[in-house]
Amino acid sequence: MTELTVALGNRSYPIHIGAGLLGDARYLTPHIAGRQVMLVTDETVAPLYLRRALASLSDFDCAQVVLADGEQFKNLDTVERVFEALLTHRFNRTATLVALGGGVIGDITGFAAACYQRGVPFIQIPTTLLAQVDSSVGGKTGVNHALGKNMIGAFHQPRCVIADTTTLDTLDDRQLRAGIAEVIKYGLISDPDFFAWLEQHMHELLARRPEALAYAIERSCRNKAEVVAADELETGRRALLNLGHTFGHAIETGTGYGTWLHGEAVAAGMCMAAELSAQLGWISAADVTRTEALMLAAGLPARPPTNLSRDRFLELMAIDKKVLDGRLRLVLLKGIGRAVVTDDFDSSVLHRVLDAASGGSATHAARS
Amino acid sequence: MTELTVALGNRSYPIHIGAGLLGDARYLTPHIAGRQVMLVTDETVAPLYLRRALASLSDFDCAQVVLADGEQFKNLDTVERVFEALLTHRFNRTATLVALGGGVIGDITGFAAACYQRGVPFIQIPTTLLAQVDSSVGGKTGVNHALGKNMIGAFHQPRCVIADTTTLDTLDDRQLRAGIAEVIKYGLISDPDFFAWLEQHMHELLARRPEALAYAIERSCRNKAEVVAADELETGRRALLNLGHTFGHAIETGTGYGTWLHGEAVAAGMCMAAELSAQLGWISAADVTRTEALMLAAGLPARPPTNLSRDRFLELMAIDKKVLDGRLRLVLLKGIGRAVVTDDFDSSVLHRVLDAASGGSATHAARS
Repeated sequence: MTELTVALGNRSYPIHIGAGLLGDARYLTPHIAGRQVMLVTDETVAPLYLRRALASLSDFDCAQVVLADGEQFKNLDTVERVFEALLTHRFNRTATLVALGGGVIGDITGFAAACYQRGVPFIQIPTTLLAQVDSSVGGKTGVNHALGKNMIGAFHQPRCVIADTTTLDTLDDRQLRAGIAEVIKYGLISDPDFFAWLEQHMHELLARRPEALAYAIERSCRNKAEVVAADELETGRRALLNLGHTFGHAIETGTGYGTWLHGEAVAAGMCMAAELSAQLGWISAADVTRTEALMLAAGLPARPPTNLSRDRFLELMAIDKKVLDGRLRLVLLKGIGRAVVTDDFDSSVLHRVLDAASGGSATHAARS
Repeated sequence: MTELTVALGNRSYPIHIGAGLLGDARYLTPHIAGRQVMLVTDETVAPLYLRRALASLSDFDCAQVVLADGEQFKNLDTVERVFEALLTHRFNRTATLVALGGGVIGDITGFAAACYQRGVPFIQIPTTLLAQVDSSVGGKTGVNHALGKNMIGAFHQPRCVIADTTTLDTLDDRQLRAGIAEVIKYGLISDPDFFAWLEQHMHELLARRPEALAYAIERSCRNKAEVVAADELETGRRALLNLGHTFGHAIETGTGYGTWLHGEAVAAGMCMAAELSAQLGWISAADVTRTEALMLAAGLPARPPTNLSRDRFLELMAIDKKVLDGRLRLVLLKGIGRAVVTDDFDSSVLHRVLDAASGGSATHAARS
């Protein structure tokens, strides 16, 4: 078992990573202050892990709500279902919410916790690779709006994160690959040695070798915890973690939530960021090739869908949170492991990249 | 013009109180950092003050959303309308929301600002007495749920509060009286001299004498600003401001939002708190009489509706935010101007008060 810390003063919290942590009450119960616990999960995860999670909560007044599974349900209506469950059980300000599931469950549960009675504590038990390496850490919570991804939300830090690596055994291959996209992201942003390690060990991750997965999760969480501690509310450096996300969110919103997985959209988005960086003369064609090759090796798309036109892309990117007073800011690359946030690029080059993307062909089997 | 400050470190903000402030850009524009401004108001206030508010925002990229008027619309669906307006106008993280209206508009707008793109700034321009003396100050934002009042929300402080006392000229008498309930509250909680002043000058407030209103608003805001500065997140003393509110919220939810005005329900709730305090032997019958007499002098109800049974009251109060691990905490009186938060009372006495209330007769004309 590895324990990392997200250092945020009196809101600091631990990330526990290891095999079999889910059934172990020692990691969970010290972070529950009151008597009431609402466990939030989805229809996919509930049959697999709900019973085990409840077993470690037997000392509490515990209830659960089981939501539909999928990004298309990450909206205010679903949050309302959590509120209704809390109120029906007359849970009060001392209640703790527990998110058991992937990124969607974590985002919804965290946001419900942020808003219920103006804020109650919550705990993350991520059961997907994507949630374990990214979304469960850092306190970004929220839901989508029909007009834009993650547009409604709050910063609300969990009391702890419990990443039980054995829960990945039941993850389907497509979800595993989607999680690997966020792992690759840390290499591309600021950890070139990790990127090189991933080039060498991608087959082990895809084969679900426990040591390889544990190493990738720990190194990803270390990267994330460090950035979050330095810039909790994303006034600066934390924006680097959005590499591939402005393009990716446009893909998710443009194709309809749930069509592309978040990680798949981010993978294609990172390749677009690399391509744009190369066309701006900031990185070499070889770096683009390395980036695309690693995505493809992970079974991830390296191209956006062909049915989003340049204008539709620009329209969708214009409502991204990274837009400031009309200037589109993007996370681009000055090298493998050297990402920058910038609005200092020639938009005609961006247009060229988007034109080429919408005219290109999908290179990922899952998309065809 | 009077300027008070809510002292909250780097989130401190001014309260401007005076006649004719609404049309004066000097009070508003220094608190708007970006270019985009979304003005949120309702169908009652818009014809009266929207044009004047917009005039002082001519330098900005300004849009507005006009909501239906009333507590029954203070819900997530209405917040969703604000999100839709923001996204349709492609407003980003630098946008500022401006709440122009009563307490409902302020609560909705503040909550929308707290959640839009995980938090954008907002400004309060309260146009009712209740909003000017209470709800616009202190950063409590949120909406109702069918199962409980103010159950969904956030602490999100405004950048400034602009209370233009001339906007009260258009307030109808019932709304004015509802605001006076919250004014009386400050006297009952901790300001016995103010309570005595109100006993002497109630007729001047009801006659809308400008000096009397200005004095009552300023003294109320001073009381509130001091409590909020000492206990922003209501971990202690701030809970005193809920005097009458646990009973009051039960009345509002139990009769259907919008039937009783919030201030009317709080007025009856304060009388119930006084009655319970007397039956516990904490205050004299004379103090109860003074409390009820001041409510009646203000044209406010001193009794709850007769159609809420004891059990229904208890059920509704059980989901109030003041309940902690099953113990109902109430704000009660140890004297006029000496409120306490306590769960240390005999519940059979509470039951007796509730029984008497539901068997009693309404004493307020507007309720009959």
